[in-house]
Amino acid sequence: MSGNLYVVGLGPGNSEMLTEQACKALADADVLCGYTVYVELVRPLFPEKETYTTAMRGEMDRCRWALETAAQGKNVALVCSGDAGVYGMASPVLELAGAYPQVSVEVVPGVTAALSGAAVLGAPLGHDFCVISLSDLLTPWALIEKRLQCAALGDFSLCLYNPASHKRKDHLQRAVDILLKAGKEKDTPCATVRNIARPGQEAQFYTLEALRSAPVDMFTTVFIGSSTTRQEGPWLITPRGYRNA
Amino acid sequence: MSGNLYVVGLGPGNSEMLTEQACKALADADVLCGYTVYVELVRPLFPEKETYTTAMRGEMDRCRWALETAAQGKNVALVCSGDAGVYGMASPVLELAGAYPQVSVEVVPGVTAALSGAAVLGAPLGHDFCVISLSDLLTPWALIEKRLQCAALGDFSLCLYNPASHKRKDHLQRAVDILLKAGKEKDTPCATVRNIARPGQEAQFYTLEALRSAPVDMFTTVFIGSSTTRQEGPWLITPRGYRNA
Repeated sequence: MSGNLYVVGLGPGNSEMLTEQACKALADADVLCGYTVYVELVRPLFPEKETYTTAMRGEMDRCRWALETAAQGKNVALVCSGDAGVYGMASPVLELAGAYPQVSVEVVPGVTAALSGAAVLGAPLGHDFCVISLSDLLTPWALIEKRLQCAALGDFSLCLYNPASHKRKDHLQRAVDILLKAGKEKDTPCATVRNIARPGQEAQFYTLEALRSAPVDMFTTVFIGSSTTRQEGPWLITPRGYRNA
Repeated sequence: MSGNLYVVGLGPGNSEMLTEQACKALADADVLCGYTVYVELVRPLFPEKETYTTAMRGEMDRCRWALETAAQGKNVALVCSGDAGVYGMASPVLELAGAYPQVSVEVVPGVTAALSGAAVLGAPLGHDFCVISLSDLLTPWALIEKRLQCAALGDFSLCLYNPASHKRKDHLQRAVDILLKAGKEKDTPCATVRNIARPGQEAQFYTLEALRSAPVDMFTTVFIGSSTTRQEGPWLITPRGYRNA
């Protein structure tokens, strides 16, 4: 008798942003599995549960462990921050799941940082938008560059994930230079949100030109407006339509 | 003494996909306000609450009513499906909120159809993606066309909202033609999800060429892969990285 494998998006890291579906999946699991920091976020809700944690880079091992354990009959919740499908664990799990046809996999969505960060700022993603990661660990920088150019040419609002890490200090600066060169205006309203829905949450507003030297780290999500985005008091607003633009 | 105005994303329409933060905002509200269909979704959770509902097109009136009512001291929850910020009510409310400085506005994020639909399909948005609405009610078709072209040139995965309505039957067909002309492959894996997380939920898989004549309506969300997206059994997967692509 095989178990279920739930791939669960926890939202930004505050249990208030869990969905009820995610809570039920965690409650139904025999074991909570994931990157240590994320498992610690939900462990207080289920202090009695078995846990299996791995360091940040052990992702494929974690997926295999979760599938093996479910195949042996346990219900497993593999947790990730934000949404399970947006730079999350759903795709690596499903890439391996074909070898475990007896395991029932369910992807449980969550509030990704594009949405939780946007809510802090108001409505920067109120119209068409792109989500792009600036991490070149698994993606050639040339492709990231092409996508930034296309996002600028299409006048999308942008949400950027992974704007920096210990090893990549200048990716946001390079991204801004690409966007400016591709035609985005220097005074395009932008903002960063750090530690979304966690202690020390902080929003900062910038022009695109100033964003170039904004302090960002791996806990920061970056928002860049379209040509219709404007800042009004504490809010960044991209109107839904062009009727009144 | 003014009230609070919560702009609340309900998720796809099943109370299981509400976040706890959204539940708390609804519980704290004196009145639930919104498009009739969405208010009816949550009324069973709070049968005693006052409600104010308007037809689909009465959006600016609804925003003004919500701000006026909060200014008079009531706590108001303005509800929308999915996320409050993605083609939702956050941006029209905030466009008007400057005239009501005494009202405290809070945007409460939710699981938008891009995420809830993607979870049904597996992980079609596992890497960089664009969200584009095909509704030209408030957006010139020329801009929609430009964004589709840029999304194709950037090899993004796409999630399309509003692929059709009673009056606009051929927008998906036109969108597919634009994507093909801009260089997307005919056999790019695609899918539609209808009635996400509601009775009658249905997923269908297509090639991009076949998507051209897929049956879609206003309850359908459309997913179009990048060049790395593949279908494996019942799943649509966009790998997170290119290491193994």
